[in-house]
Amino acid sequence: MIIAMEPQATEEQIQAVCKKIEALGFRAHTIRGVERTVVALTGIPGQLDPEEFESLPGVAEALLITKPYKLASRETKTEDSVIQVGLSDSPVTIGGQELAVIAGPCAVESREQTFAAAAAVRQAGARLFRGGAFKPRTSPYTFQGLGQEGLEILAEVRQEFGLAIVTETIDPENCNQVEEYTDILQVGARNMQNFSLLKRVGRSSRPVLLKRGISATLEEFLMAAEYIMAEGNYNVILCERGVRTFADHTRNTLDLSVIPAVKRRSHLPIIVDPSHGTGKREKVIPLARAAIAVGADGLIVEVHPHPDMALSDGFQSLHPEEFESLMEQITAIAGVVGRTTARSTPAPSAAIRE
Amino acid sequence: MIIAMEPQATEEQIQAVCKKIEALGFRAHTIRGVERTVVALTGIPGQLDPEEFESLPGVAEALLITKPYKLASRETKTEDSVIQVGLSDSPVTIGGQELAVIAGPCAVESREQTFAAAAAVRQAGARLFRGGAFKPRTSPYTFQGLGQEGLEILAEVRQEFGLAIVTETIDPENCNQVEEYTDILQVGARNMQNFSLLKRVGRSSRPVLLKRGISATLEEFLMAAEYIMAEGNYNVILCERGVRTFADHTRNTLDLSVIPAVKRRSHLPIIVDPSHGTGKREKVIPLARAAIAVGADGLIVEVHPHPDMALSDGFQSLHPEEFESLMEQITAIAGVVGRTTARSTPAPSAAIRE
Amino acid sequence: MIIAMEPQATEEQIQAVCKKIEALGFRAHTIRGVERTVVALTGIPGQLDPEEFESLPGVAEALLITKPYKLASRETKTEDSVIQVGLSDSPVTIGGQELAVIAGPCAVESREQTFAAAAAVRQAGARLFRGGAFKPRTSPYTFQGLGQEGLEILAEVRQEFGLAIVTETIDPENCNQVEEYTDILQVGARNMQNFSLLKRVGRSSRPVLLKRGISATLEEFLMAAEYIMAEGNYNVILCERGVRTFADHTRNTLDLSVIPAVKRRSHLPIIVDPSHGTGKREKVIPLARAAIAVGADGLIVEVHPHPDMALSDGFQSLHPEEFESLMEQITAIAGVVGRTTARSTPAPSAAIRE
Amino acid sequence: MIIAMEPQATEEQIQAVCKKIEALGFRAHTIRGVERTVVALTGIPGQLDPEEFESLPGVAEALLITKPYKLASRETKTEDSVIQVGLSDSPVTIGGQELAVIAGPCAVESREQTFAAAAAVRQAGARLFRGGAFKPRTSPYTFQGLGQEGLEILAEVRQEFGLAIVTETIDPENCNQVEEYTDILQVGARNMQNFSLLKRVGRSSRPVLLKRGISATLEEFLMAAEYIMAEGNYNVILCERGVRTFADHTRNTLDLSVIPAVKRRSHLPIIVDPSHGTGKREKVIPLARAAIAVGADGLIVEVHPHPDMALSDGFQSLHPEEFESLMEQITAIAGVVGRTTARSTPAPSAAIRE
Repeated sequence: MIIAMEPQATEEQIQAVCKKIEALGFRAHTIRGVERTVVALTGIPGQLDPEEFESLPGVAEALLITKPYKLASRETKTEDSVIQVGLSDSPVTIGGQELAVIAGPCAVESREQTFAAAAAVRQAGARLFRGGAFKPRTSPYTFQGLGQEGLEILAEVRQEFGLAIVTETIDPENCNQVEEYTDILQVGARNMQNFSLLKRVGRSSRPVLLKRGISATLEEFLMAAEYIMAEGNYNVILCERGVRTFADHTRNTLDLSVIPAVKRRSHLPIIVDPSHGTGKREKVIPLARAAIAVGADGLIVEVHPHPDMALSDGFQSLHPEEFESLMEQITAIAGVVGRTTARSTPAPSAAIRE
Repeated sequence: MIIAMEPQATEEQIQAVCKKIEALGFRAHTIRGVERTVVALTGIPGQLDPEEFESLPGVAEALLITKPYKLASRETKTEDSVIQVGLSDSPVTIGGQELAVIAGPCAVESREQTFAAAAAVRQAGARLFRGGAFKPRTSPYTFQGLGQEGLEILAEVRQEFGLAIVTETIDPENCNQVEEYTDILQVGARNMQNFSLLKRVGRSSRPVLLKRGISATLEEFLMAAEYIMAEGNYNVILCERGVRTFADHTRNTLDLSVIPAVKRRSHLPIIVDPSHGTGKREKVIPLARAAIAVGADGLIVEVHPHPDMALSDGFQSLHPEEFESLMEQITAIAGVVGRTTARSTPAPSAAIRE
Repeated sequence: MIIAMEPQATEEQIQAVCKKIEALGFRAHTIRGVERTVVALTGIPGQLDPEEFESLPGVAEALLITKPYKLASRETKTEDSVIQVGLSDSPVTIGGQELAVIAGPCAVESREQTFAAAAAVRQAGARLFRGGAFKPRTSPYTFQGLGQEGLEILAEVRQEFGLAIVTETIDPENCNQVEEYTDILQVGARNMQNFSLLKRVGRSSRPVLLKRGISATLEEFLMAAEYIMAEGNYNVILCERGVRTFADHTRNTLDLSVIPAVKRRSHLPIIVDPSHGTGKREKVIPLARAAIAVGADGLIVEVHPHPDMALSDGFQSLHPEEFESLMEQITAIAGVVGRTTARSTPAPSAAIRE
Repeated sequence: MIIAMEPQATEEQIQAVCKKIEALGFRAHTIRGVERTVVALTGIPGQLDPEEFESLPGVAEALLITKPYKLASRETKTEDSVIQVGLSDSPVTIGGQELAVIAGPCAVESREQTFAAAAAVRQAGARLFRGGAFKPRTSPYTFQGLGQEGLEILAEVRQEFGLAIVTETIDPENCNQVEEYTDILQVGARNMQNFSLLKRVGRSSRPVLLKRGISATLEEFLMAAEYIMAEGNYNVILCERGVRTFADHTRNTLDLSVIPAVKRRSHLPIIVDPSHGTGKREKVIPLARAAIAVGADGLIVEVHPHPDMALSDGFQSLHPEEFESLMEQITAIAGVVGRTTARSTPAPSAAIRE
């Protein structure tokens, strides 16, 4: 940490800061500039809050330099993490050369609807299937998911179509039930700082898909991943799904610049959700193309056999033939950035991948 | 709901919208303007999402007019809700003429620290005591609270000082433990859309202090209250504690305009947290004054016997003598807006209260 | 406009609203629903502010449906506008099949630096050259541009390299001087609502590159274009350059979803500035790829022969060889979305372009 | 400036940073910590951009410590600035013990309307009169002000009612015209970074009322004041008028915490505009009370003799009798914070003023 004193700070105030640093077991380094004095703190970093120093007299500002996340940091692990899903002989990987495409309806509504969606996305080249059995909804009066019955339908989908399953868990107790049926546990954006849930999925053997909170900074996002990893589960897949801003032409503002920022700071894979990220069907395909072009490791997309009859989020779900077109387009973009999809012809040009 | 068609929408597209409205059991009213046609939908409002209509061809925009919250709405209950806390012979009320002041340390750290804080805030005129036994922290490596031991210390504080207790519950299972010890269950800002927790506290007999999420709109805030009320617990106290914006001179931007906005739309009481709302000790008192001046029903403030040694949030905690000064200042402001505090002399001028 | 009455609004209040509508020369349509009454207003739309009605007693909400922009709207002109720059025999177009790439240094610093940048970007395939002679800077103490001398250097660049020139004008009087030398007048983000400047460039014969303000909604952005068009200059090129949000991993948050949103609402071309949009050199190329993938009509990129010695924004300027790589990568992406660049080989697949 | 190296930075990378610092004429101090090395830079601070260092290899982060504003800073001038307006024998002051209340209509619409407003606000105790002759409007099709005729009406108001005049100037050329008629030049929020205008008003002999831009950080706000002061005009009055956030229950979010933050960093007076800050008449009085309670030096408020017939912003203008009530309420609050208004009875308690 760096503590900048005010220009008019007295020698006693500077000494008081140094004394506090040393009392906490760190070393203080005093640098006297033309305008002001700065005190640097070194030592084994614990969890110091800069604001603890800012309230001392004579202190202008205290700045943290060491990042608070360790396990999620690329400083700890320099190579990319590649996460394997499914125990079968042909596991799906997330973070490797092949892009991970997770597709399916917002909610599991019935066996028929779910099977129809699964058949369509399987056919188009997705290898992971999404569908909510427990739905966190803004209103207590709207459809909250089929629950256990939904989980059982998802298990059938895995069996029938060979798709790995991604579904959301909404609280620690609910996690016991969900982890029995799913291949990847999803933690929704509203629960990104539900620390009880993060700790619980951190003790699971399933990989976790962690969605970025609607107003989470990059540091908070990586700290949420750190919570899961601190419990022993290192298989965390990050997901950008839009942040809340003043802009009102989309439901959220998809922050694609977070992809290269995550790649620089962390070894974890990151995918993009263009469905929730825009909340408008007609923007899903353009932003899915952009997500792959910027370097994301995959997508999670809502596809419904009959979007106009969906019980939730139909307006942002793709028709099966639109998803087919999305797969075709991102396969072309993938070739440009040195990635592949399940639809790629053998040899992608590895040319541009950074 | 109002559905505006595009100027060039065809008659078939207009009919398709009307047909969908009627298929859903509502009535469609077509208004043909100079530039475009608008379709209004009437009937018993269920939970329609305007975006379901926006994806139809020819539709420019769909706008919801009926608010989705009912129980929390002033349209349902016009008089202010006044919430009673404590079963003793001198209950504390929140939302009545006397302002509710909740004060105490961020976290219960020890019996000594908690008792010292309790003695100080009691002395200065607070009748409700805050202190966290379970702390949701951004980092998994920081102090997470004393847990059960902290709850027991709080119970002793109630006994010893006659203060009603407010403490946070962090998940549904944890609520079983916390509700045994506390007078008011606090739901933190990060959990404002943790619907499992909202449903659980909605089944409790304790009043609930619901903090506004860091990026929650007023509608989302009231919908979170609605979740609790829909389970049968009508004793919800709202709390503004700052929202996330681009502004970087305070930790959060305290949104005091939400107070008159809540008063217009809802009958629930609302208090302000100037400690988290600013994150800076020197701004707590000025913004506490402003909160009372704008019409809030009370405050929740962090007070610590030795802020510089606090295990969390010391930089925003008041010293006991600062809290004493805060009470004095808000008592003066209260008189101007027709409210009282425990320190008020008998007859406040009821002049200005709106 | 649609005016929703409160459920408890009286008949007199409803009549008062209707009377006000008719007094203003419009027609009022009353729709009585189960819960509340809604009044729709039709007629030749002038400039009504919904808030004029919201202050009437009994009114819950008033909503504007007709968009306030006309000339910029796709409802007025359905086909894409293609803007020609330069009067020579081989004009550059913006908004057509070939992507427009504008490149060059943030500021014109010297003849040598500018010529070196121009040679590099010309070589890599750019046909438009950027460079500031007048620089709006946050601090009055930093380099404010070479002024007239800078304009003369730019004129030499046009002559020498056959590049069309894009440079910023900072106030109405300054516009007299700048328009003599430039091919496209740039209006910076901070001036997006400098209406005196918008009116002045609206009377120029030069096309205008209008950057989106850092916190402008899409409607405000299109209204700024409308200001220019209302004066008679229809050659407006929009430019997304990032908006201000809470996110701190980039200088601004590049809002790529605005591209398909503009395409839906307006016929004007829109390009992207990934340099200011991210403020970090290492993110410029990934986001440039994403901008083309999402459907932008081109890019404006900072390129400096020696970024580390730049007098402004060196940290976000590309080295010439990085720009060469950018051109190569976006040429590949362009092929996927049915566009071309100056580097494209003859026949692009027109397959995917929407 | 402080430059934090990455943990794995090499000795050569550290040396390169030091060399760059010294080449720029500063001194480098290297502090080797357990985890990483930090380089501190001292010397006469010029205008360094931290991002210039962040692009060097091995650098994790660079942080500016010295603030870029000088003349506006309290480090330069510790006592509060008190600005005198009007040359008459009873000048009005802004920033002194008496609160400055500026009131009047959004726009000068006619001599009758303006005189009626002036009579009302004079009567209620205002000593400064506002009214726009040149109106920056979002739409080119709405009323843009009476121009020269409006200025002449304002001059008559000064003569007739003894009120000092505050009116907006919209560009450098327009300033020549406006400064002849007004006592205070107002720079609107949209022009806060119109540097040509800031320089022009910086050369005026009139005090300047500078409104905070809708998305301006505190530093940018003070840098805009610095632009004016750097030209020689030290009489700058800051004005908070709400910032743009996601919150949709008010037009803007009034950021009252900026008042104590400005008071800490700068000696300039700051007032609050609760009319534009909320955009809703019913919130103007509560937030005016809060502004005085938080420590603002005054208010600027819209008052119209017939708000429902106003040509602009009628929905946020107070009726004369509402303004009378506002004056009464803030006079009571002023007494609590040791301030006075023109309506105060002789001896205010100076008790609480910080």
